[in-house]
Amino acid sequence: MKILVTGAAGFIASNLIPRLLGRGDEVAGVDNFFLGKREYVVQHPRFAFHEFDLLDLDRVAALLAEFQPDRVWHLAANSDISFGTKYTDFDLKGGTLVTYNVLESMRRANVNEIVFSSSGAVYGEPAVMPTPEDYGPIFPISLYAASKVACESLVTAFVHNYDMRAWIFRFGNIVGPNPTHGVIHDFVLRLRDDPSKLVVLGDGTQAKPYVHVEDCLDGMEFGVATAGDHVNCYNLAVTDQTSVREIAEWTIEAMNIDRAAIDVQYGDSPRGWRGDVPQVQLDTTRMTALGWTPKLSSNEAVRRTIAEVVEQFAGGPLT
Amino acid sequence: MKILVTGAAGFIASNLIPRLLGRGDEVAGVDNFFLGKREYVVQHPRFAFHEFDLLDLDRVAALLAEFQPDRVWHLAANSDISFGTKYTDFDLKGGTLVTYNVLESMRRANVNEIVFSSSGAVYGEPAVMPTPEDYGPIFPISLYAASKVACESLVTAFVHNYDMRAWIFRFGNIVGPNPTHGVIHDFVLRLRDDPSKLVVLGDGTQAKPYVHVEDCLDGMEFGVATAGDHVNCYNLAVTDQTSVREIAEWTIEAMNIDRAAIDVQYGDSPRGWRGDVPQVQLDTTRMTALGWTPKLSSNEAVRRTIAEVVEQFAGGPLT
Repeated sequence: MKILVTGAAGFIASNLIPRLLGRGDEVAGVDNFFLGKREYVVQHPRFAFHEFDLLDLDRVAALLAEFQPDRVWHLAANSDISFGTKYTDFDLKGGTLVTYNVLESMRRANVNEIVFSSSGAVYGEPAVMPTPEDYGPIFPISLYAASKVACESLVTAFVHNYDMRAWIFRFGNIVGPNPTHGVIHDFVLRLRDDPSKLVVLGDGTQAKPYVHVEDCLDGMEFGVATAGDHVNCYNLAVTDQTSVREIAEWTIEAMNIDRAAIDVQYGDSPRGWRGDVPQVQLDTTRMTALGWTPKLSSNEAVRRTIAEVVEQFAGGPLT
Repeated sequence: MKILVTGAAGFIASNLIPRLLGRGDEVAGVDNFFLGKREYVVQHPRFAFHEFDLLDLDRVAALLAEFQPDRVWHLAANSDISFGTKYTDFDLKGGTLVTYNVLESMRRANVNEIVFSSSGAVYGEPAVMPTPEDYGPIFPISLYAASKVACESLVTAFVHNYDMRAWIFRFGNIVGPNPTHGVIHDFVLRLRDDPSKLVVLGDGTQAKPYVHVEDCLDGMEFGVATAGDHVNCYNLAVTDQTSVREIAEWTIEAMNIDRAAIDVQYGDSPRGWRGDVPQVQLDTTRMTALGWTPKLSSNEAVRRTIAEVVEQFAGGPLT
């Protein structure tokens, strides 16, 4: 199969691409290295990497027309939610306009299948938890989530009007090797640079379902192979939650830092930042009914990722 | 009060502005005459009209900063849904990007209140009819509706992050004087130009709730005065539906055209065009519970509008 992956140097794509190559797919990838990292770009004879900004519709359209993929895994996005609060057009451009460019290029090149990484953040602060896929109203509270809603809507409209098929996955917090951002990544880097203190955004009570990227990719691939509607939308999460406080403590422990000697500074707010959804629980009933469940719990995914990221970014425990 | 109205030369705004002026408000309006018409621009000492494209963020921001309105009625949009199927970036630009520009300009100028005209089209082809506001999942089937969903999401995110308040109204089909498009407008113009035949998009069975613009404005003003949440979202519709076939017959009758002599050509499809939602029923329970109900039924609104538009565009019945 020929697969185009956007955000190819990013966290999820850099874990996905080796899987696709491993089963014989021919893969093309695009990244502009805004969040993605050069060292995450896969080197393989069946992988062609293209460095450009997906905001350039002509470039996207030309690549789709030339490569003629059977399917697009559209994973490019600003996944650093707090960043999007500083520049109000950041997610509009990097999320909504980019997704339009991908869909429009698919339409022009007669490419019909798209896998899209959405987010449980689309639910905003829902009245129902765990939150199912058919929850409404959809009132996101961050510009990141607003963009994910806009992207999902573009996807469903393109599917209807141009005979496409789509798999939309609303993620919990995905963690694992090759992070570009996120709480574990941030904690490990801060502790590596200064093991005497740790500043935490929010009061540490924020709690979310963390999914290991291997489970995430298992789930997405299972969904794509199994779900046969025109628009297939699934929460992709685990049923337990891990708090930021637990992540802080486990990271300190994994880095072998003396807990008594470190100053952990929590904020006052139950939110990490404006637009942060402090308590997330996603209803995974639909995915379970489809026949898939994750291997790791949230706590297991977090503990494994802490070990992986400490190794990757700090070369192992500090002492 | 100082009010800014976008889409000021359009159908709904040109009916709204005289009301606002009538109660003493100072009003500024913006339109680029893409759908709006010069003859719909209100002339009044307390109304300042500005001709520019809302895609120009600098112009929007400058106007907001200078005029410092207490509230924005953001009514500008491509309301001609079928047009948006021909140019896939039409609603993205004229809906989503324009709405971002309005919200960002409000943020910069510390303007906090927005009234937004959304659409029942956001529900796509819902499994529940009449469809309530909390229906999910939100899978729109037209690029027009995808843009309305994107706009709503931008509104709710800006409200959360920048202390705004919003009233979102999901309209049924609004009809009345000063139309710029729509089935009654189109039928009257076609029959005026050629009373021997009438070409109808779709098989005429499409049926939707039609709301007279006077009821629509009553409802919006009531909602803005009464609903006090940060995000207030209401279906604005009537409980009955009118079919396209009825509208065709009543328009022929109102124009005093001999029914036996006219060739009415229906299409084959139950949809008027791709992305058209053929059967719409919106649950109006929330608006009723708030204390407001429309004066005219769908059929009454359609009959009254046919008379108004025949008078406005054809100078009365033809014979």
